[in-house]
Amino acid sequence: MKFRLLRLIMAIIFTSGVCMAQMNQPATVEDFQPASTNQPGKQYPQVNSEGRVRASISAPQALNVQLDIGGIRYDLAKDEQGVWTGDSNPQDEGFHYYQLIIDGARVPDPGSMFFYGASRWGSGIEIPAKDQDFYSLKNVPHGQLRENLYFSEITQSWRRCFVYTPPDYDKNISTRYPVLYLQHGMGEDETGWPVQGKANLILDNLIASGKAVPMIIVMDKGYASKPGQSFPPSSGRSQGRTGGIPAFEEVLIKEIIPMIDTSYRTLADRGHRAMAGLSMGANQTIQITMNNLDKFSYIGGFSGTSNYPGTAEIDPATFMNGRFSDGAALNNQINLFWLGLGTKEPDPFPGSVGAFRTMLEKTGVTYVWYESPGTAHEWLTWRRSLYQFAPLLFRK
Amino acid sequence: MKFRLLRLIMAIIFTSGVCMAQMNQPATVEDFQPASTNQPGKQYPQVNSEGRVRASISAPQALNVQLDIGGIRYDLAKDEQGVWTGDSNPQDEGFHYYQLIIDGARVPDPGSMFFYGASRWGSGIEIPAKDQDFYSLKNVPHGQLRENLYFSEITQSWRRCFVYTPPDYDKNISTRYPVLYLQHGMGEDETGWPVQGKANLILDNLIASGKAVPMIIVMDKGYASKPGQSFPPSSGRSQGRTGGIPAFEEVLIKEIIPMIDTSYRTLADRGHRAMAGLSMGANQTIQITMNNLDKFSYIGGFSGTSNYPGTAEIDPATFMNGRFSDGAALNNQINLFWLGLGTKEPDPFPGSVGAFRTMLEKTGVTYVWYESPGTAHEWLTWRRSLYQFAPLLFRK
Repeated sequence: MKFRLLRLIMAIIFTSGVCMAQMNQPATVEDFQPASTNQPGKQYPQVNSEGRVRASISAPQALNVQLDIGGIRYDLAKDEQGVWTGDSNPQDEGFHYYQLIIDGARVPDPGSMFFYGASRWGSGIEIPAKDQDFYSLKNVPHGQLRENLYFSEITQSWRRCFVYTPPDYDKNISTRYPVLYLQHGMGEDETGWPVQGKANLILDNLIASGKAVPMIIVMDKGYASKPGQSFPPSSGRSQGRTGGIPAFEEVLIKEIIPMIDTSYRTLADRGHRAMAGLSMGANQTIQITMNNLDKFSYIGGFSGTSNYPGTAEIDPATFMNGRFSDGAALNNQINLFWLGLGTKEPDPFPGSVGAFRTMLEKTGVTYVWYESPGTAHEWLTWRRSLYQFAPLLFRK
Repeated sequence: MKFRLLRLIMAIIFTSGVCMAQMNQPATVEDFQPASTNQPGKQYPQVNSEGRVRASISAPQALNVQLDIGGIRYDLAKDEQGVWTGDSNPQDEGFHYYQLIIDGARVPDPGSMFFYGASRWGSGIEIPAKDQDFYSLKNVPHGQLRENLYFSEITQSWRRCFVYTPPDYDKNISTRYPVLYLQHGMGEDETGWPVQGKANLILDNLIASGKAVPMIIVMDKGYASKPGQSFPPSSGRSQGRTGGIPAFEEVLIKEIIPMIDTSYRTLADRGHRAMAGLSMGANQTIQITMNNLDKFSYIGGFSGTSNYPGTAEIDPATFMNGRFSDGAALNNQINLFWLGLGTKEPDPFPGSVGAFRTMLEKTGVTYVWYESPGTAHEWLTWRRSLYQFAPLLFRK
């Protein structure tokens, strides 16, 4: 009898505990599927309809295994076979970098594909977005992604440049095309836009539907320093006020653009040349285009402006040597000034971009404004920005 | 006094222990450098002049950390900061896949770049080879690597094909080029030759020195199955006698070759079309070319032949439906039959390739034979094979 009573008490405690847990935290929806970013044939990580990530790894002798995603570490639990499994809270739609921590070792998840971001090659995971159709691989004509290796005399180093050529580039052999120079963010490189950015698929889809004109996209690395110049900080969110790395503007203007205009059938004038970038790449874009308005007439800043990280009011008379002080003159010169931001971006981005917009409005510079709903300082914001920005290019 | 005596005895034991260890195992040469295959800025793994790999990772709570390379697991040792470090035995020159094992979890090393092989994306490391100049990035004209996405009606799936176009392909816009179809091995994919194989750099260097004629190289995935056909085994060394995966021949002949001949300026006849592959890709090459001698006249088998894994004597009258039975007729049809193997390849490759060679010699088929000194069933064997094979192409 005593034993039965004990079991009853334990059952009550256990049941009420479950009830409390359920009251505090709704049960996880058990519709997990392997992520689209998994390695071929790998079952984990998985994602459910709430956007939770379920990680799993065999580590029989480990004392502690965690999933580290979105700035939070989640403890995994071990089963009898030594396999650790656990779920994150729901994540935003889109692409996120993450890692596993095994007894203190921060390692890539062997189940995921690897991406360059946060200054390292590591795991990434795609949370399916409701609007994912615009960057999906579809049965439309596809352009090519071309890897170009070149030696930079300015930096005395080999560099790599990815170039998207639109469908039919090799068929229309007398046609010349406008060019978009498209830059990644801090801690990323020239693989960002062609891989996690899906720039090629976004343009394939836009061109197929007639929403964007066929164009060449050049994706190079935004880091460049001359021999002896200090190397960029290897990690972290900090971005220089000068918009990045000392020699990139010189490399872009003196080496990359001439190389592209020589190697590809471009329309090599400012009316057919655009530049855009995300975060650090947005800072660089605004700096470089405003320094070189003889070369660019379309400008896109995705989640970044050149006053970063400042959020204070900007005086157009002194900011960037007064380049924004005459709005009417700029409006005559610039075909498109475009700014975008995710609605969930962390500080200082809303304040920083906001102060920049206020300055543009004060001086009367016309610009297009876009907000990506429900996304933070991450790749879905920037895929959507490209999708919104590209159709406005080369229309004048 | 007692304490001093104890210290003396311990010192003697310790010193003699060190001496014995040194007698059995020469001291490691302390000239380690970060590997060329490391992620940007990462100090580990390192390689020394003996070809030893030194791995290092912070894992403060771990009980056991190992380096797993070349089929051997090496225990790492922990320092006071929780960083585990240790060395492997000397490795062969060239490229090797490896991993770390942290308390039983098999994970990629966060210090290395990642490569697709052994049916997974994971760590790889380059041990500098004495002859590495031929595949080095040098100041010569460089071709482009182009990623092509296409839908295969046969397999009802999206596929990816990397195409190397030689330097000046976009300048000589009326020139047409011969084509080499180049295949990876078991557990690898279309990234094998352009990444760890360095096919583009090998050809850039050969073309710059005039040792090879400018050519297009097509690198696609050797796995293909129709809906409902069984999927390839996901790991292991086993290779089907039929040379791989059921639908690849059909995909290559009916989809890939026509696509390449439509999209690129090819010389689209058998006199200007070659096929080569490594291991499973060699089996596939011999099967496919011998089934389609109207389409190919240059054939290369790197570390593999179509009798794999058999090592028994081959009867040319019955082998592959007697396709090799008339050596004189084959010699008239084939411009080049080329076979290569590393001198350290494991069973069954020496016996299997040996039996194939004996068969060729019996029926009088002329072939070129190459041995890669001091390399096993790994990428340096195949880089060298390509370097030897490519100059013999398209000379007739």
